[in-house]
Amino acid sequence: MAPQKFTRVVLAQRPVGHIDDKTFRKETIPYDLKPSTPDSVVVQVDWLSLDPAMRGWLNDTRSYLPPVQIGEIMRAEGLGTVIEVGSGSKFKVGDVVKGTFGWTEYAVMKDKTLTKIEAPTHVESLDFLGVLGASGMTAYFGLLDVGKIQPGETLVVSGAAGAVGSVVCQIGKIKGAKVVAIAGSAEKCRWLENDLGVDKAINYKDADFKEQFKKHVGYLDVFFDNVGGEILDFALTRLNQKARIVLCGAISDYNAPKPRGLQSYLNLISQRARIEGFIVFDYASQYATAADEMGHWIKDGKLKRKFHTVEGIASAPEALPMLFTGGNTGKLVVKVSQIQTSRL
Amino acid sequence: MAPQKFTRVVLAQRPVGHIDDKTFRKETIPYDLKPSTPDSVVVQVDWLSLDPAMRGWLNDTRSYLPPVQIGEIMRAEGLGTVIEVGSGSKFKVGDVVKGTFGWTEYAVMKDKTLTKIEAPTHVESLDFLGVLGASGMTAYFGLLDVGKIQPGETLVVSGAAGAVGSVVCQIGKIKGAKVVAIAGSAEKCRWLENDLGVDKAINYKDADFKEQFKKHVGYLDVFFDNVGGEILDFALTRLNQKARIVLCGAISDYNAPKPRGLQSYLNLISQRARIEGFIVFDYASQYATAADEMGHWIKDGKLKRKFHTVEGIASAPEALPMLFTGGNTGKLVVKVSQIQTSRL
Repeated sequence: MAPQKFTRVVLAQRPVGHIDDKTFRKETIPYDLKPSTPDSVVVQVDWLSLDPAMRGWLNDTRSYLPPVQIGEIMRAEGLGTVIEVGSGSKFKVGDVVKGTFGWTEYAVMKDKTLTKIEAPTHVESLDFLGVLGASGMTAYFGLLDVGKIQPGETLVVSGAAGAVGSVVCQIGKIKGAKVVAIAGSAEKCRWLENDLGVDKAINYKDADFKEQFKKHVGYLDVFFDNVGGEILDFALTRLNQKARIVLCGAISDYNAPKPRGLQSYLNLISQRARIEGFIVFDYASQYATAADEMGHWIKDGKLKRKFHTVEGIASAPEALPMLFTGGNTGKLVVKVSQIQTSRL
Repeated sequence: MAPQKFTRVVLAQRPVGHIDDKTFRKETIPYDLKPSTPDSVVVQVDWLSLDPAMRGWLNDTRSYLPPVQIGEIMRAEGLGTVIEVGSGSKFKVGDVVKGTFGWTEYAVMKDKTLTKIEAPTHVESLDFLGVLGASGMTAYFGLLDVGKIQPGETLVVSGAAGAVGSVVCQIGKIKGAKVVAIAGSAEKCRWLENDLGVDKAINYKDADFKEQFKKHVGYLDVFFDNVGGEILDFALTRLNQKARIVLCGAISDYNAPKPRGLQSYLNLISQRARIEGFIVFDYASQYATAADEMGHWIKDGKLKRKFHTVEGIASAPEALPMLFTGGNTGKLVVKVSQIQTSRL
């Protein structure tokens, strides 16, 4: 049953530094949604994914996606349920679909922008926003294709308790690497060591962080970086020859008008090492293969996942900054509708 | 004929920033050199190579070669003439050899540390310190193996009038790239455009350098970086997708106790680009093949070379800083003996 009104959240102004209460604006508007063409549907949004990359979409700069425009619904991937179909749609009412709905409770979507989700028995629909979604794919292709991790190598992961980092740590162990995780609280470190099985987790807020890093890492072969800034710069001083630094994200620098800068980059020369950035969308044609392999790891209990859930679309603006302050452990999602799509 | 005394230059103290007149010490000592073993020789040093990498050897830090120790002869490659041979040496008096003699007029060397130079007719012995030596090999493997330049791509070279940069520019043209050179004077720019045939040379000291860069480069595919610092940081804002930044040297930062830092590294993510360092010694097993190909380019007039010569071993300490202040155009060498080994 469609409601009389629904809520969406739009970009009100571009943040210069941190996201604040002026960045987004909540709008509650009359519900008058209909399939716009025969090959479109109306979707009730059930879950939305919150990701660090969203901070970049708020900047009016050249990047891999156009910036979100002022007044536009904030871009976000999600899972939803088809509630009304156009006359020529390939979907049925009740289908669970994944798409870039944005921060809204309901969305009119073209068929071709949607993927029907049919979760195998050993995974949940919600996994398609996590391990089997962009964050899991980012971990998989970043570590294996960009980082080219090898058995016996030393892997260090920053932002290790986050959606991407926690998967990277586990794939690292599956591939036979020594894995040292970096996170921002003792609780996260315990989770990483006890539940995810990393060899050592280090709290970067500890006063002796650098000494712990030197002691437990020694020198590293792959640094999977979600954080940037000071930790990345320090990692550059601890490279083995031919080390690969996988530049996935830089949550410490996304909100900085002017990043601190990498001062230790000269070590890349003496250690014949490289820093490489990547965008997971480039691997879209290989997602299915990766999802299949990761699904088996889930089934075999080798890949654990954790969701951090906030309730209601109106919570999204306050929840997003958590990704930069360390408020979440695991994949941050917004539960938008009251539907129960997951047993996780 | 051996002299009664000879001169050598040793490291007196480690420079914190720039090399100054306290960094090195000249020593004139009695000549009592003899082959130390049957398989060693005494070499009269004719030419020495001065290279930016030598600044790094003065720092007491972990690197690809051990630091030069206080009181030790400054490390340097050179060309020399064998003047005395051990009873079991494979060399003959009069042989021209290449070796790491250091800053000295005479050196006792083990056979295995020397390479006999037999220049084909179309090249000079001195080329083995230039295009066919470490700087030429650095250009060749850096651009082709690390940078993987492709026909039609845009190549930007910093420090383009130097020993490495000038060869990179020419190989770039040979390989069909659009080449934009960055150098530090109008005269160097004219040489690069008129003699070496780059598409455009830009003087980084011009007030409108960045505008010129944007106009003539647009966006770049390969940045061959000899300079580091601010120019590298700016280049990071002008990357095409999948751009490769070849980190060869950083003459602007070698003398800085704390480099400025790369603030624009986040562009590596959005452009799926990489920064990669390398050390030419890793390619030693392929030098002969490269030298053969480059020899043909010389013969065909596709590869021009220029030497900047200073006279006498005592000039080395004052000449080395030229590499960081832009005093040289082409390969900087010290003519140590009075021998005429080159028609260049």
